Amino acid sequence: MDPTQISHLALDIGGTLVKLVYFSANGDYNEESRSNGCSVVKGRLCFAKFETRKIDDCLEFIRFNILQHSGVQHSNGAVHDDYLSVKATGGGAFKFADLFKEKLGILFDKEDEMHSLVGGVNFLLKTVPREAFTYLDGQKEFVEIDHNDLYPYLLVNIGSGVSMIKVDGDGKYERISGTSLGGGTFLGLGKLLTKCKSFDELLELSHHGNNRVIDMLVGDIYGGTDYSKIGLSSTAIASSFGKAISDGKELEDYQPEDVARSLLRMISNNIGQIAYLNALRFGLKRIFFGGFFIRGLEYTMDTISVAVHFWSRGEAKAMFLRHEGFLGALGAFTSYETHSQNDSKPHHHTAQRAILNCSGDDNLRHINDSETIEYSISLV
Amino acid sequence: MDPTQISHLALDIGGTLVKLVYFSANGDYNEESRSNGCSVVKGRLCFAKFETRKIDDCLEFIRFNILQHSGVQHSNGAVHDDYLSVKATGGGAFKFADLFKEKLGILFDKEDEMHSLVGGVNFLLKTVPREAFTYLDGQKEFVEIDHNDLYPYLLVNIGSGVSMIKVDGDGKYERISGTSLGGGTFLGLGKLLTKCKSFDELLELSHHGNNRVIDMLVGDIYGGTDYSKIGLSSTAIASSFGKAISDGKELEDYQPEDVARSLLRMISNNIGQIAYLNALRFGLKRIFFGGFFIRGLEYTMDTISVAVHFWSRGEAKAMFLRHEGFLGALGAFTSYETHSQNDSKPHHHTAQRAILNCSGDDNLRHINDSETIEYSISLV
Repeated sequence: MDPTQISHLALDIGGTLVKLVYFSANGDYNEESRSNGCSVVKGRLCFAKFETRKIDDCLEFIRFNILQHSGVQHSNGAVHDDYLSVKATGGGAFKFADLFKEKLGILFDKEDEMHSLVGGVNFLLKTVPREAFTYLDGQKEFVEIDHNDLYPYLLVNIGSGVSMIKVDGDGKYERISGTSLGGGTFLGLGKLLTKCKSFDELLELSHHGNNRVIDMLVGDIYGGTDYSKIGLSSTAIASSFGKAISDGKELEDYQPEDVARSLLRMISNNIGQIAYLNALRFGLKRIFFGGFFIRGLEYTMDTISVAVHFWSRGEAKAMFLRHEGFLGALGAFTSYETHSQNDSKPHHHTAQRAILNCSGDDNLRHINDSETIEYSISLV
Repeated sequence: MDPTQISHLALDIGGTLVKLVYFSANGDYNEESRSNGCSVVKGRLCFAKFETRKIDDCLEFIRFNILQHSGVQHSNGAVHDDYLSVKATGGGAFKFADLFKEKLGILFDKEDEMHSLVGGVNFLLKTVPREAFTYLDGQKEFVEIDHNDLYPYLLVNIGSGVSMIKVDGDGKYERISGTSLGGGTFLGLGKLLTKCKSFDELLELSHHGNNRVIDMLVGDIYGGTDYSKIGLSSTAIASSFGKAISDGKELEDYQPEDVARSLLRMISNNIGQIAYLNALRFGLKRIFFGGFFIRGLEYTMDTISVAVHFWSRGEAKAMFLRHEGFLGALGAFTSYETHSQNDSKPHHHTAQRAILNCSGDDNLRHINDSETIEYSISLV
């Protein structure tokens, strides 16, 4: 087994998506020698994602774009010596371990899911400039994070479900809450209600929708007036999907975009509220929202931000991360570094060094294949 | 205007349902004279509900069962002197004020919605025996409420939307939170997803369903195993409706009962969690759940109880109320008493006295008409 291959890849296999982080060297493995005797390979971290239900696409991608590119090939039924050890996290690290071993000769070195999420966020906040930002009133604003004043914070990772983790330091964290109303609920209900096929399609629909068609507003109950005594304006949502009660309409009578919009609003707002309530318990002023649900979508970020702002009366702040979808995978990737910091495997430092040299400009590429969109970021 | 009619009726008009409480005297207005000179009419409080979208049914009911029974009749276009003043709360007290004035000659004496809810609960807890109960592991257990140790508590009223109110005493309360995921969401989404026509039909469906068909469980992500490190069993719901992502199935391929079950579980669990988080903020150990969403349904109460128990690690207790659906209407009704306690209108005391004489046995009757089920309770 050639250890220089190992750090090239980490996986986070969730209920809906497989997230990959892999290291790609510049040019023809442009290896530099350092004064301290370590060799440095400059390159970048690349990101890719696949739907978990199409795990075979992920296997193919790894076989042809990572293993082959690295000059490593494994046939089925590889003998033990041929196995590659690769960091993996998420529930799928358990569920798909046998499949990866059989098909690619890859052994999963399993990392705990929460540990990886926290590791990924801490890595990003400490290493990558202009990573965190707020979003309010249509304004994206990057936040300078003082490394000495980073903890404690609340991490809200919105995957298929939602985990809420109080983070007190490097490797010091506790999963304090969560909710089953997450990205899987949005897509699951969205598919049943709108017949759209993908998350992207559903988000696109929601852009053009109007939630007031289906949501019951305070004004709908109060005959157009506010319930001002308790601070509820006439346009506040009293009951998500509440108008579908009384209209005598069927599903077909509603525009799918309005349904998608109400659904996105309902789930984003609910997550924002539960996150705020948990932040309040522990006096956490900063809430970082991550996970593939958000995807930089303005309406989602705005809804979450407004929920946190509204409920906390401006006390707590919702923050977002540019690499939100890859927190667990990044954490698993950087755990190569952690686990080997006292040994002499130079490639780990290499990857780390390459990241530390990253520029502020990210180079997001969209790689289309038949089913997925991949993103990659250059951290030269 | 004959003031003895006034206290016979109070309304709570919500986004989905109109709730009525009215006083019905025993036999032929069996009026007793008291030693203090007050006359007492023994009777009972009766309860009825109608769908808000079928408000005309409610108008007819009031016209023929209450006004006529009382010997009072109003034609359209009644002159001002003919108007009856009736307590009304909920958003519909604003929205439908003109309609009731025109059609029935009834003027709404508006009571604040939160004030009425709190008044209704305090009245029930202080006056009606065996009103509050817990529900855990299939066991309903009545709770003796010490009147001197009643406050503070959290009231969670689940109507179309959900209001959460911290109650510190008679008339001392604050609406501290709420969620738009309430009964209207259950029925609205349920109608769109299952084509069922009514709340009762949807609840009946949910009885026979299995949420694991559509919900993504921890075990589905982890390949059948628990995520024991953070206390999530393999059967915990990771993502509500999350399986609908990956199945390639359409809505028609799912059994409506499974959809209804997942929906009920999602909403009940979410309300239980948000209620617990709010109770925690203020150190409230008792949470009373009311509103027409619950309807004494065991699965709903069990889900809410388990959510509160799970999140609070047994610290907080979910409690339910036998007259859960009529809290606001009862509060509005009893406000006749409050407002007149220092004047000489004997009929208010009469109604109050009749209630105070109630026996522990409630006499729930189901009065079917073409559209609704009415309940009435004898408080002789």
